[in-house]
Amino acid sequence: MSSLITLTTDFGIGSTYVAQMKGVVLGIHPAANIIDITHAVPPQDVRAGAIALREATPHFPVGSIHVAVVDPGVGTRRELLYAEFGGRRFLAPDNGLLSLLGEPQRIIRIDQMRPWREVTSSTFHGRDILAPLAAHLSLGLDPATIGALTNDMVRLDLPIPRREGHEVAGQITHIDPFGNLITNIHRNALDGALPQSVRFGQHLIRPFVATYGERAPGEVVALFGSNGYLEVAVVNGSAAVALGASENDPVIVLFSVPAAGE
Amino acid sequence: MSSLITLTTDFGIGSTYVAQMKGVVLGIHPAANIIDITHAVPPQDVRAGAIALREATPHFPVGSIHVAVVDPGVGTRRELLYAEFGGRRFLAPDNGLLSLLGEPQRIIRIDQMRPWREVTSSTFHGRDILAPLAAHLSLGLDPATIGALTNDMVRLDLPIPRREGHEVAGQITHIDPFGNLITNIHRNALDGALPQSVRFGQHLIRPFVATYGERAPGEVVALFGSNGYLEVAVVNGSAAVALGASENDPVIVLFSVPAAGE
Amino acid sequence: MSSLITLTTDFGIGSTYVAQMKGVVLGIHPAANIIDITHAVPPQDVRAGAIALREATPHFPVGSIHVAVVDPGVGTRRELLYAEFGGRRFLAPDNGLLSLLGEPQRIIRIDQMRPWREVTSSTFHGRDILAPLAAHLSLGLDPATIGALTNDMVRLDLPIPRREGHEVAGQITHIDPFGNLITNIHRNALDGALPQSVRFGQHLIRPFVATYGERAPGEVVALFGSNGYLEVAVVNGSAAVALGASENDPVIVLFSVPAAGE
Repeated sequence: MSSLITLTTDFGIGSTYVAQMKGVVLGIHPAANIIDITHAVPPQDVRAGAIALREATPHFPVGSIHVAVVDPGVGTRRELLYAEFGGRRFLAPDNGLLSLLGEPQRIIRIDQMRPWREVTSSTFHGRDILAPLAAHLSLGLDPATIGALTNDMVRLDLPIPRREGHEVAGQITHIDPFGNLITNIHRNALDGALPQSVRFGQHLIRPFVATYGERAPGEVVALFGSNGYLEVAVVNGSAAVALGASENDPVIVLFSVPAAGE
Repeated sequence: MSSLITLTTDFGIGSTYVAQMKGVVLGIHPAANIIDITHAVPPQDVRAGAIALREATPHFPVGSIHVAVVDPGVGTRRELLYAEFGGRRFLAPDNGLLSLLGEPQRIIRIDQMRPWREVTSSTFHGRDILAPLAAHLSLGLDPATIGALTNDMVRLDLPIPRREGHEVAGQITHIDPFGNLITNIHRNALDGALPQSVRFGQHLIRPFVATYGERAPGEVVALFGSNGYLEVAVVNGSAAVALGASENDPVIVLFSVPAAGE
Repeated sequence: MSSLITLTTDFGIGSTYVAQMKGVVLGIHPAANIIDITHAVPPQDVRAGAIALREATPHFPVGSIHVAVVDPGVGTRRELLYAEFGGRRFLAPDNGLLSLLGEPQRIIRIDQMRPWREVTSSTFHGRDILAPLAAHLSLGLDPATIGALTNDMVRLDLPIPRREGHEVAGQITHIDPFGNLITNIHRNALDGALPQSVRFGQHLIRPFVATYGERAPGEVVALFGSNGYLEVAVVNGSAAVALGASENDPVIVLFSVPAAGE
């Protein structure tokens, strides 16, 4: 049984909402170890929350419980889900937050009627339903008792990189605090082909490198980041500022196919 | 004995002050579980700190130790307090930080002369007095040994909502990171009457709802938030931006009295 | 064996990079207690990272493991270090991050080839090398097994305060979230002399006080802060705003020498 519970929300840093959830968890399971993934998801931005979960949760041990609250539909009839991906356990509203984690091993629609707390609000299911559930699951509660199995969940309809000829065309999914442009083009999309350069707007970014430090400060480089996705970066600077880039901007990788045996 | 210690400060995120306090606590009680309530209280804003404590601490288990440091008078003759509210324990300067927590069961003026650390600074009592005290209390130190009982403490002189006819007049106490306007009008101030609408500046906000999701994105709604206080919100948007609202702006709830038996 | 691990980075709050490191640590040592020192070091600002370590780590217990990642040279041939200062253990790139901690008791150049994780990226050594190492060290791994002893490390070439006549001339090293101007002039640089006033630009700051609260709100004061360094502050206000100060601005302390026997 893992007592590790993570939180991913759009609550920002100027509120006590995250702390309220932690208080509820610790009231039920005092030895729970609660780790923040991020609370800087932009308000109601389900896609950004889904990307945060995809980036961070695979680095946590099997058995971890990941609670995600980016919940524009709180209080409506949207369902709450328990789901398992790669041995990790997730609690989240059924709005697409879990749709970048691969194929689920199990999905359960949570029966919201269960009295997890004396008082349940209509506006803060993260605190009043998901937090107590996470605490109870971390103490050994069987997920089969909290709702009915289901086969489907809401999935985000995100653009998928297209491969054509010697190019893969994708887009910027987010910009990290260094100003690195992270795209949706995974290393695997090239099927072993060797990336040569990247086209972004008017820019042709030629040095395709293994790491930032290969080039001089200020140079624009392209590389596969630590989670395998194509990034455009400025060495020790901000590519977002230098290139005037925004989320969703298109990015194209040009590659050459390795000769047989390579 | 609870080893749960929370921190609420105005230290912001660009300093190491919070970490210094945690280091001191863990040096005394390595198994203490330290949880951040918030460090985004605006500098020296005692009222905002008091509201944060009122919002978050009731969700923590009985026995928790809550350390609050918003301390414009650090180093002057203001006292430091230990106090108990609803079975929870608090350490804070005596400047009103604890005045929204209801009636204390016990107040002790801390004897600051006690050598909690080898070196005590004049400018950081949070680190040098309150943090070690919290650690020792979490290890079982009897609060009766740290100072003398007292009956009074500083209380903030905050406006109280006024009820007149079919109206309750209050004000915005703070704006959360979603842009929701949180007021000082608690659900209980209506004594069971049914809220009909809210007047804010030139706006008459008619849909009084149970939760954000009842209305379409972009609509302005009024509701009682998850801690029972009246909020004005824009569904999936920012009421602060949409209505140009600021802290302390007046807000009026109009209600109808339920017929007997309702 | 301490299971206390701290993190100091320039990762900001808008990414999941910190959480990825925590996940890796907890996968190896589930009972590790991970504390954030700060993640608000400006990107690639090694000096600011070094100051954060100097401010915070002495307040943590002996045996703590402090991981610092401000790493403009990630992926280049810069080395990674394990070092001990005052009984505390540090893991960091060899770029000056550890140069404000005094004299090391031991320095080891980490053998990066060791397979700490199945997959090691070229761009995130904090997650792929330092985090697993910290976890293993906290479980008892002997540092002697992770690399070879060395005698040197990169040290920042920072200006040192100059004492001349009845003056010590230094500079602002950083500005805290309250707007206090923190300098590189330590109390010890005065050798027991009594500070009289501080010259900053056109300003002569006369009240040299023991704590902020000695003066009325709005007054400019000078004092030695809680870690012993000279600060210029505005009582309950921002000296940075009031005086238009920036990092690296020069500051001069004027002092009088105590008579013998004082």
